[in-house]
Amino acid sequence: MGLKPRLEPWSEGCPELALLILIIIINSEEESVGLAGKVLVFPYETDFSFVTLKPRMEMELRAFTLCLRVATELPADRQIILFAYRTADYDELNVWRERDGRVSFTLSGDGVFFHLPPITTFRTSLCLTWESNRGLAAFWVDGKRSSYQVYKPGHTVRPGGTVLLGQDADKHLGDLEATQSFVGEVTDLNMWDHVLSRSAIQAWHYGHRVPEGNVFAWASIEYAPSGNVLVVDDD
Amino acid sequence: MGLKPRLEPWSEGCPELALLILIIIINSEEESVGLAGKVLVFPYETDFSFVTLKPRMEMELRAFTLCLRVATELPADRQIILFAYRTADYDELNVWRERDGRVSFTLSGDGVFFHLPPITTFRTSLCLTWESNRGLAAFWVDGKRSSYQVYKPGHTVRPGGTVLLGQDADKHLGDLEATQSFVGEVTDLNMWDHVLSRSAIQAWHYGHRVPEGNVFAWASIEYAPSGNVLVVDDD
Amino acid sequence: MGLKPRLEPWSEGCPELALLILIIIINSEEESVGLAGKVLVFPYETDFSFVTLKPRMEMELRAFTLCLRVATELPADRQIILFAYRTADYDELNVWRERDGRVSFTLSGDGVFFHLPPITTFRTSLCLTWESNRGLAAFWVDGKRSSYQVYKPGHTVRPGGTVLLGQDADKHLGDLEATQSFVGEVTDLNMWDHVLSRSAIQAWHYGHRVPEGNVFAWASIEYAPSGNVLVVDDD
Repeated sequence: MGLKPRLEPWSEGCPELALLILIIIINSEEESVGLAGKVLVFPYETDFSFVTLKPRMEMELRAFTLCLRVATELPADRQIILFAYRTADYDELNVWRERDGRVSFTLSGDGVFFHLPPITTFRTSLCLTWESNRGLAAFWVDGKRSSYQVYKPGHTVRPGGTVLLGQDADKHLGDLEATQSFVGEVTDLNMWDHVLSRSAIQAWHYGHRVPEGNVFAWASIEYAPSGNVLVVDDD
Repeated sequence: MGLKPRLEPWSEGCPELALLILIIIINSEEESVGLAGKVLVFPYETDFSFVTLKPRMEMELRAFTLCLRVATELPADRQIILFAYRTADYDELNVWRERDGRVSFTLSGDGVFFHLPPITTFRTSLCLTWESNRGLAAFWVDGKRSSYQVYKPGHTVRPGGTVLLGQDADKHLGDLEATQSFVGEVTDLNMWDHVLSRSAIQAWHYGHRVPEGNVFAWASIEYAPSGNVLVVDDD
Repeated sequence: MGLKPRLEPWSEGCPELALLILIIIINSEEESVGLAGKVLVFPYETDFSFVTLKPRMEMELRAFTLCLRVATELPADRQIILFAYRTADYDELNVWRERDGRVSFTLSGDGVFFHLPPITTFRTSLCLTWESNRGLAAFWVDGKRSSYQVYKPGHTVRPGGTVLLGQDADKHLGDLEATQSFVGEVTDLNMWDHVLSRSAIQAWHYGHRVPEGNVFAWASIEYAPSGNVLVVDDD
């Protein structure tokens, strides 16, 4: 099943969005399944290149672990969208590299900011863990955990939205901005609906076997690239 | 036995301090024992969050090794109190990250300053050794010793004070300042009344077995958190 | 045999130098032999603290390898003398950390400059190799070689001078300057009259067995500290 049926309901009564979706559908490659051993390459700064990801379960989350490997040649003071999950009304779960170099994590509202090592042309393995109970949030860079921050205890991520790589959709798939776009490589994205242990995150970092993500699993991920995105062997 | 009896004598005849202590007692959780596998998380900049530690012996010290693991999201140019031991009249033994990034060690008076790698969101293991005989002082960062400095040969640390994490008490538990407070994580604090060998400090850094501290031992430490401090599993 | 007889000849007819030498002799500890497992600590910036080293052979050198481990708390923009070998008329062989952070190597005249990693409070193992035949000069930092530079091919280092740690003597043991003095630690200094192989330099760096220096060998070195210099266990 493709992503398109899920896009239709909220486009009713909104001709501009319907037009946008039409354009996306025209530009889109077919949805495909599975990226084991593959890298997504976003070679240029654009306002039209992105990849839509289809979760394996509804993203009504009270905890999660999101992991991906990322590399970029973009300058250190350029804002970059790393992960965007948006419902009709909210930026539900965004990860940004900010202009000041910090990495931010946002759950529909003001975000929380982390001082991490720079994201460079060499691959960084980046995980983000959060749980609603106490609001403990942390990034894990190459298997090392940042200091915990307390963020939105009690919150629940809303289901029914769309996950994009490469662009931030300020209105559910509308208003893409080239100056926020991602340029570089993403691979091995996995997401779980719970907080992984330190040893599991480190195992993932080192490429050892870990149970694949139950929200997203790179090896069997359903994805639909749009615009100028390359799928290449991870070599 | 709790910490409160030790707080009482110096509050006599000082109604403001008595009030402060009353507030602290009201806000305090009970004193607890043992933090094996746990991390203290100070999530916000406050002037009221701290943890009092009760030593296993009187802190009349002519030598010591103080070790802890620490991580913070605070900016690099922010002064941070890392460890404070104060008697009624003196800052007996303080460790600060200074505004200029250096780490200082103070025994009741002017301190001595070390150029260490930055303390970041990732955990740094930090030890400090000092012995009164020749005044040899050094920090150990992730098992590597700084250059020795000669500091206060002949001095003795005075007993009978209070150890705080999270705040510097300019007057024995009064006058806390948010802009000097600690925000981040502390774990695995141990203190010995002698100078540990290089191999013992490196063993501690790598999490191998070493004889636990006879002044403070994290696994059996008596501690009393006040204000907004979380005790979380170290994962 | 002490170093003093060798100091006497050039002080004749120069009362100021004679006075200086008298002071040095008065302040000097006895000459000692062997520093295995020991570190020289220069705790303060002075114009009177240094250590004189007595070579095992005359330093008439057409090639050499000089190795030492060094750590300092001095600011990055402070000039520091690391090694000084001077005859009556010439700075025969000097190694400096320059104000701009580069490390220089001087054979009686203009020096040659290398961009090396900073010398910090943690120990750096530093070797310098040079051979007269082609003039190939390189520093080795923690076992990694700098780019070669060609410096003074055909030159021969003159014998009969004095080696100092801690100070640069602009006139053979006169005119010491506090602002160029060394503050910090030196250990494990060895010097050979030939160029060591990469594998030998790396073995030395890692503390493995290598044939000890035939010009200087730390374990059996003849040394005479003056002023405020501590000899401490390397721990």
